[in-house]
Amino acid sequence: MSLITDRASLDFLLFDVLSMQALQQSERFSAFDRDTATAILDTAQKIAEDVYLPCAAEVDAQEPEFVDGKAITHPKVGPALKEYCEAGFLAAGFDESFGGMGAPSMLKTAIDGMFSCANTSIQSYAMLTQGAANLINTFGTEQQKSLFLPPMLEGRWLGTMCLSEPQAGSSLADIRTRAEPIGDGRYKITGTKMWISGGEQDISENIVNMVLAKVPGGPPGVKGISLFITPKMRVHDDGSLGDPNNITLAGLNHKLGNRATTNTLLNFGEKGDCIGWLVGQEHHGLAYMFQMMNEARIAVGHGASMLGLAGYLYSLQYAKERPQGRRPSEKDPDSPQIPLIEHADVRRLLLAQKAFTEGAMALIFYCAQLVDEIAIAPSKEEAQRVELLLDLLTPMAKSWPSEYCLEANKHAIQILGGYGYTRDYPVERFYRDNRLNPIHEGAHAIHGIDLLGRKVRVAGGAAFQTFIELVSETLDEAQSHTELAAECAQLSALRDTLIDTTQTLADPGQGERELANATLYLDAFGHITVGWLWLRQGLAALKRQTGGEETPFLSGKLQTMRYFYRYELVKVPPMLGLCKATDDTCLAMTAQQYL
Amino acid sequence: MSLITDRASLDFLLFDVLSMQALQQSERFSAFDRDTATAILDTAQKIAEDVYLPCAAEVDAQEPEFVDGKAITHPKVGPALKEYCEAGFLAAGFDESFGGMGAPSMLKTAIDGMFSCANTSIQSYAMLTQGAANLINTFGTEQQKSLFLPPMLEGRWLGTMCLSEPQAGSSLADIRTRAEPIGDGRYKITGTKMWISGGEQDISENIVNMVLAKVPGGPPGVKGISLFITPKMRVHDDGSLGDPNNITLAGLNHKLGNRATTNTLLNFGEKGDCIGWLVGQEHHGLAYMFQMMNEARIAVGHGASMLGLAGYLYSLQYAKERPQGRRPSEKDPDSPQIPLIEHADVRRLLLAQKAFTEGAMALIFYCAQLVDEIAIAPSKEEAQRVELLLDLLTPMAKSWPSEYCLEANKHAIQILGGYGYTRDYPVERFYRDNRLNPIHEGAHAIHGIDLLGRKVRVAGGAAFQTFIELVSETLDEAQSHTELAAECAQLSALRDTLIDTTQTLADPGQGERELANATLYLDAFGHITVGWLWLRQGLAALKRQTGGEETPFLSGKLQTMRYFYRYELVKVPPMLGLCKATDDTCLAMTAQQYL
Repeated sequence: MSLITDRASLDFLLFDVLSMQALQQSERFSAFDRDTATAILDTAQKIAEDVYLPCAAEVDAQEPEFVDGKAITHPKVGPALKEYCEAGFLAAGFDESFGGMGAPSMLKTAIDGMFSCANTSIQSYAMLTQGAANLINTFGTEQQKSLFLPPMLEGRWLGTMCLSEPQAGSSLADIRTRAEPIGDGRYKITGTKMWISGGEQDISENIVNMVLAKVPGGPPGVKGISLFITPKMRVHDDGSLGDPNNITLAGLNHKLGNRATTNTLLNFGEKGDCIGWLVGQEHHGLAYMFQMMNEARIAVGHGASMLGLAGYLYSLQYAKERPQGRRPSEKDPDSPQIPLIEHADVRRLLLAQKAFTEGAMALIFYCAQLVDEIAIAPSKEEAQRVELLLDLLTPMAKSWPSEYCLEANKHAIQILGGYGYTRDYPVERFYRDNRLNPIHEGAHAIHGIDLLGRKVRVAGGAAFQTFIELVSETLDEAQSHTELAAECAQLSALRDTLIDTTQTLADPGQGERELANATLYLDAFGHITVGWLWLRQGLAALKRQTGGEETPFLSGKLQTMRYFYRYELVKVPPMLGLCKATDDTCLAMTAQQYL
Repeated sequence: MSLITDRASLDFLLFDVLSMQALQQSERFSAFDRDTATAILDTAQKIAEDVYLPCAAEVDAQEPEFVDGKAITHPKVGPALKEYCEAGFLAAGFDESFGGMGAPSMLKTAIDGMFSCANTSIQSYAMLTQGAANLINTFGTEQQKSLFLPPMLEGRWLGTMCLSEPQAGSSLADIRTRAEPIGDGRYKITGTKMWISGGEQDISENIVNMVLAKVPGGPPGVKGISLFITPKMRVHDDGSLGDPNNITLAGLNHKLGNRATTNTLLNFGEKGDCIGWLVGQEHHGLAYMFQMMNEARIAVGHGASMLGLAGYLYSLQYAKERPQGRRPSEKDPDSPQIPLIEHADVRRLLLAQKAFTEGAMALIFYCAQLVDEIAIAPSKEEAQRVELLLDLLTPMAKSWPSEYCLEANKHAIQILGGYGYTRDYPVERFYRDNRLNPIHEGAHAIHGIDLLGRKVRVAGGAAFQTFIELVSETLDEAQSHTELAAECAQLSALRDTLIDTTQTLADPGQGERELANATLYLDAFGHITVGWLWLRQGLAALKRQTGGEETPFLSGKLQTMRYFYRYELVKVPPMLGLCKATDDTCLAMTAQQYL
């Protein structure tokens, strides 16, 4: 079995549950029939397994070093990434005019997922570069596009996003990096950026930093933030590299996981002029950056789900092979030991991993489908409707996999027992790597406030309404199947509770108490969303069963759906109960009362 | 503030909630009045802070090395442990005849907790030595006691427990290590032991391994297991050291955490005779070892709670000092940032840590109190009654802190954000260290089967009945306080549900389905137990308030109790519901259905 992908489940998700084949009807994606997609995925799987996977433990064990102001990466990082880029995967989602494949987001997500599952911290460089390139592609001038996109999409120049500063992690209003205009759309950048992944490395010819900074005289807070392309090496008008742009590596962060990705503290303009190109208009930088952030947020959720999958596959294989113990009813100690997977609690730990991981993947691929729908929307109105829905789901797409696939990784260690706690097996690495995901691209709680304080309310609650309608449609379809009666009843009640809770909390006079349990609301909403998508997976499985296919694969999908409803969705009512009651137990606890 | 103890909370637990001062009435513990205990704790705190804490990051970063068949530890491990031993703490719980203090278990637990909180992986050596010494003290011959106990209690010889083998982790019935009698109560030991903490190191003059092995011709399975004292260096009759005893270090395990403690693969008798002394009778070894295992299980839960405390204290200090962001209602970006602790979700993350950590400590110290009650019981019957209760609670004492204080450590990282993910701050280390605790001394699920399959049923369910009576007594007392009405109603209902569920599941015809959700039962029972102890903490706080003390400390205890009831105990009914329904969703999932 592959340790980086479950192709049957991936196909099931892409073609049975989400109907990627429908995209083929559009002119834009007409080239991507199922056979083409399958061939591309075969190639991706092969490179991911042959190149990314074998060095995953090594690049983790030997983290980047800070030598003479440079970041020295493990010698296998650059070559592995190069193979990915040369196969065209970094550019897969971009137009052919830039050397891309023009692939739908769903396919691109499936491709990148294999690489992420195989070696998440090498793949981070690709993800950041794609995000930076997308940003330039959407908001940059023609000159900026022609200068930066081709080398970025070939992987010769890699990208970063530079938001945080030492004193401003989650609070972007407080950034201090300055940008002084020098004419020609260029600015002198001065300041310090913290937590910059890939901010310095020795694997690309140039680094294209997308930097948030404040132009003097602008409005305070986030309304005074502008966005700049600030490359490590200056770039001449003909695209050739010039002098170093005075970005100094002040230090590398030594992390719990994700170690192949350098994480840097950078000083801009400390030792000479550091030149940045303004993107779009002054003071609109945060709005632009939100495109990259939203994309990155979904990518973080995707990465988390791929780590969940990596742990699931590894621990499943182990549980099938490792003999240990006997059934509780077996009293003969001379009887042979049974494989771990025969024990009820190991089955539970595996089922939880499967439910979390495949649930998270459904959420991520559904978001990718929305991205594709926006790209081929027949009207601006329809595009906006889908965009709003995607905006609503983005907090969940980022945070739900980060929370629950980390939990899945905890279970993977548990199945391996003492072995799982050693560095001879990869599961402890997945757990370390995944612990990052609830932190970066907005700490977990930020997304609760974003969801409850903003997203459910925008456009008069239109996106929330769309979501409820989608859930109701699925329920209408599922209600004709007696096998799904219990799940329909449960989801229907949860939908009503969610509506009720949201209406209570989302009134215009929303205060601190209404937002005090926003994280619980986020987790509960995520559970309901994943529960809805599990019902859709159940429906798709039943459909194939009705077609005469009676396989353990399909009955396993249905059983996993049942597990998610019986063991996970039952947790939601108390969570929403606290939200609706605007319980202030936490909010009312003063600093002095803790100790 | 101290980063290794919260003395006010510790005093509250020892003297207000659990009345350690009552022990002073007994002849055995009459020397331990409150002032004496306080003075001892002051000394322990000072050594733990001055010696254990400062090297915790170092000894983690530089793990033991395998050089020429030896395990080389970090140079600060031995000296730190030596200071702990020389202050008399290793021997604190032992009789004065062996050079101990004769301290009650509650006080010993409080002492060791500080060292464990400061540096868990150095303290592991002490914990294992205490367990091995206790085993010899209880079941050894006078000769074995006089040979081994004095050097062990001085810390010159350290102890280990050798149970697992490469092919038999959780399944002791399958161990293959053999012991051939050579007369004189001595045996030749041959075999391989895996996961042996402290099995080889360079910090003590000798290592006293308590080894489980099978004497040829004995019954199969666990009934054929015997226990042997098998030292690294042979010991002459006068106590002096002889030749090496042919125990070979085959390898060191490289772990996620707990790195100062060596973890070894040992070969016994591979290169010559390895001599072990039989402890007690042949074939009764597992029963003896259970004393050490039960002690070690409570110690594991204690260690987990101390890591929870370490993360709580560190992240609390950070949250009070670190400015970041503004209240949701604050629209002026030029207003100063507020400390993290002012944010509702940070308060939740801290409150969860406090509720888990102080709840776990209450459970552990309650167990310690039971150990003391057994020691001074007025009659054999009373001692047996308390022993049964302690046996019932041991699965929870081991597993509940391991599960929920790990969750607490996850929250501590979250509060520090990106900083928490770096190795410049200790919280990622606590998280790594604590991940061991659900694995060793019986993997999490083992304790569910132990609890539901055995402990609630022994002696006709007498221990379970005792537990229910204790909860009911507390409820009777609490019901007179209107402030506790909601908690009383909730706990009372949970008690009834627990009785009902247990009666349904614990009938004599218990089969695989009844045990299939034993882990959920374990977690739920643990929550109810900790909920009961939180109510007792609430009562103790109210009592001091009634005495005129109106402090944030006391109101904080009450608020934490409320948090635990409102945010945690609400999770119990669905868990017990699945247990009672003998839900077989997991059990019925076959290996083929997973993939």
